[in-house]
Amino acid sequence: MSRSGDRIFKRLKGADEALRIFLNSVPMAPLDAEEVPIEDCLNRVLARDIVAHRDIPDFDRAAMDGYAVISADVLGASQINPALLRVVGRAEAGSRPGLRISEGEAVAVATGAPLPEGADAVVMVEDTRAISDSEIEVYSPVTPGENVQAAGEDVRAGEVILKRGTRLRPWDIGMLAALEIASVEVVRKPKVAIISTGDELAEPGEARPGSIVNSSRFILSAMLEELGCLPLYLGLAGDSLEEIRAKIEEGLRSCDAILITGGTSVGERDLVPEAINSLGKPGMLIHGIAIRPGMPTGLAAVDGKPIISLSGYTVAAMMGFMALARPLILRLLGSKMNPAPMIRAKMARRVASPAGMRTFVRVLVKADGKGGYVAEPIRSSGSGILSSVVKANGLVAIPEWKEGIEEGEEVEVELLRPPD
Amino acid sequence: MSRSGDRIFKRLKGADEALRIFLNSVPMAPLDAEEVPIEDCLNRVLARDIVAHRDIPDFDRAAMDGYAVISADVLGASQINPALLRVVGRAEAGSRPGLRISEGEAVAVATGAPLPEGADAVVMVEDTRAISDSEIEVYSPVTPGENVQAAGEDVRAGEVILKRGTRLRPWDIGMLAALEIASVEVVRKPKVAIISTGDELAEPGEARPGSIVNSSRFILSAMLEELGCLPLYLGLAGDSLEEIRAKIEEGLRSCDAILITGGTSVGERDLVPEAINSLGKPGMLIHGIAIRPGMPTGLAAVDGKPIISLSGYTVAAMMGFMALARPLILRLLGSKMNPAPMIRAKMARRVASPAGMRTFVRVLVKADGKGGYVAEPIRSSGSGILSSVVKANGLVAIPEWKEGIEEGEEVEVELLRPPD
Repeated sequence: MSRSGDRIFKRLKGADEALRIFLNSVPMAPLDAEEVPIEDCLNRVLARDIVAHRDIPDFDRAAMDGYAVISADVLGASQINPALLRVVGRAEAGSRPGLRISEGEAVAVATGAPLPEGADAVVMVEDTRAISDSEIEVYSPVTPGENVQAAGEDVRAGEVILKRGTRLRPWDIGMLAALEIASVEVVRKPKVAIISTGDELAEPGEARPGSIVNSSRFILSAMLEELGCLPLYLGLAGDSLEEIRAKIEEGLRSCDAILITGGTSVGERDLVPEAINSLGKPGMLIHGIAIRPGMPTGLAAVDGKPIISLSGYTVAAMMGFMALARPLILRLLGSKMNPAPMIRAKMARRVASPAGMRTFVRVLVKADGKGGYVAEPIRSSGSGILSSVVKANGLVAIPEWKEGIEEGEEVEVELLRPPD
Repeated sequence: MSRSGDRIFKRLKGADEALRIFLNSVPMAPLDAEEVPIEDCLNRVLARDIVAHRDIPDFDRAAMDGYAVISADVLGASQINPALLRVVGRAEAGSRPGLRISEGEAVAVATGAPLPEGADAVVMVEDTRAISDSEIEVYSPVTPGENVQAAGEDVRAGEVILKRGTRLRPWDIGMLAALEIASVEVVRKPKVAIISTGDELAEPGEARPGSIVNSSRFILSAMLEELGCLPLYLGLAGDSLEEIRAKIEEGLRSCDAILITGGTSVGERDLVPEAINSLGKPGMLIHGIAIRPGMPTGLAAVDGKPIISLSGYTVAAMMGFMALARPLILRLLGSKMNPAPMIRAKMARRVASPAGMRTFVRVLVKADGKGGYVAEPIRSSGSGILSSVVKANGLVAIPEWKEGIEEGEEVEVELLRPPD
């Protein structure tokens, strides 16, 4: 690949440029919404803003165990000069609001209890002493609002508490529960077809001598699942225009986007682009992207649906997915991804990369014993060598404008697993 | 919380020390294994090493389109002095191995095709010219092995390709498929009971005046789900020893671990520790951990099963979960977590934290316009203020030995969402 790569990379589009060109001719809006119970919403994407319909808490609450008081009554209170108050009731957490106090009175409160009307602060139990069943001495002053959680302190009615496009994390679901929202509108999961092409491929368990097991579709399926999609594997198509066309038509009928592997070599046959172009406009928009591995990646659209044509090599297909398919599919969700875990490490040895190509290097990140990390590039790293990813725990993207990374140079590593 | 916290933190155990103490008296081994089809194994944890039972590829393959040759036959070949070879066949990717060549012969090969017996290299098609139906000129020499993917280059038979304890990522599933392994033994998903205690709590949709909606159980459930557990919510227990005991007994019968929120205040009643201690040995091992929020977190065990007692405040329960429950549950899985996304940022203003406490600060991370990031602490950050997490996109852990972070100091932020 390297020599023919060198010859053609100058006319290849960079990944970001390719995405811009694609999105200019194929506007991609988030899919329609569906109503889902909040329990099932982890990592789903909100389709609408969530506006709080009430305050949380919806009443002033004691933030400590102690006595609800009128702060003016305990002004200047001290060990030597305690304030004497009459206890007129007790409020537990969860008890109905409704008690009230007047000058010289207090109510015993547990943390979380509604503050009685008239009270404006809570004296901690440690700063008091009961001198009879209904009288306490207070040894410390409190300022208005002290040890009180005010109504609306957490959430105010009318506030946009979660925005459209938010990928719901555990605490967001907790917030929806706190607002007593039982279900929300989330963006429907994109249905993404996976089509594998190539006479040489066989499904696991059906391999023939000379055949290659179709492992890419498992990888793509799992990566789609993690992104929040419904992957739909449409099966193997042989190296025949008709078979490939038929599978793509099936994908266009049943899915929101299509991933198709193989059939895009720069060799004798270019069946996938031909099949796509025969199905509608705009067809193949970009073929060949300046990423390595992943150069034969292509972007196409038919009926407004994106078709991402990926390499027949597993690792190249993975990189094409990450660099191009993933950002496009996120448009269907109207959301960013959860952030990727990144770590800084020093490159253990020089890695060359061709200028003009974004090059993905698989690395093994290890602690350097001095509080930092080193990244050792995996040696065997052809675009079909899946073990290079399985044995790696990190991925370094060398940008287009660099020709390699020097030994000892600091790089940002996307962690694929926890570092050793 | 701050003043009483100050008084008792000196006798509190740090989170790491607490885990060590717990694990010394309660050894926690990975749960038993179950056989699962690889399609359903994303993020499951391998229970056994996976040993490759064969080479991948299991035959030498052409790595380029061209001609399989004997390298000695094209030694010194050039444009001026081409080597002439007889083409004796053609091999496509996926075709059965079985062809062979002798001196002076070549076989046309497509990328991925099995190399004919006798051949040791592939000349790229660009370096050749067909001069008749059965003869080519070769204009460039090749070294032995050039443009050939050797058998076993990706995986060697007998190699441990995936280790026990590995959390299976998409490419790992691809590797299992490539090895034609249809299902693997993974660690059973830990069943974790969630018990909520507190008379003040109400389920969403059932809130009464003065009650507090039980949002923590939704958060814990989602965090358990992300970790690879089966959460089982056992419902609300009122502030009654008998109710709490009954729920814990139910959890011990049906689950591998228990999370229980509330009932652990340092106030008048300490119902959860009492209930746990009445059920068996060793009971409550540690009560009160030097994390903030999350100080009332406790670690207990009955019948060898861990019981993690968490604060009744949502944010404090979350932090207790992250600092203590999560590492213990990972023991049941025999695995590390997927790495958390971290980013370095400069703190936008000084944040104080008590010495001896690991303090979790919710922050909003933003690009600083100069290629870096700033972290703005969220102001309202009580241990019950869930909006402080919902509005944050990052979490900064101030270690026990520090008293706060200075303005402009660089910190590691765990990203809870993509930065703005």
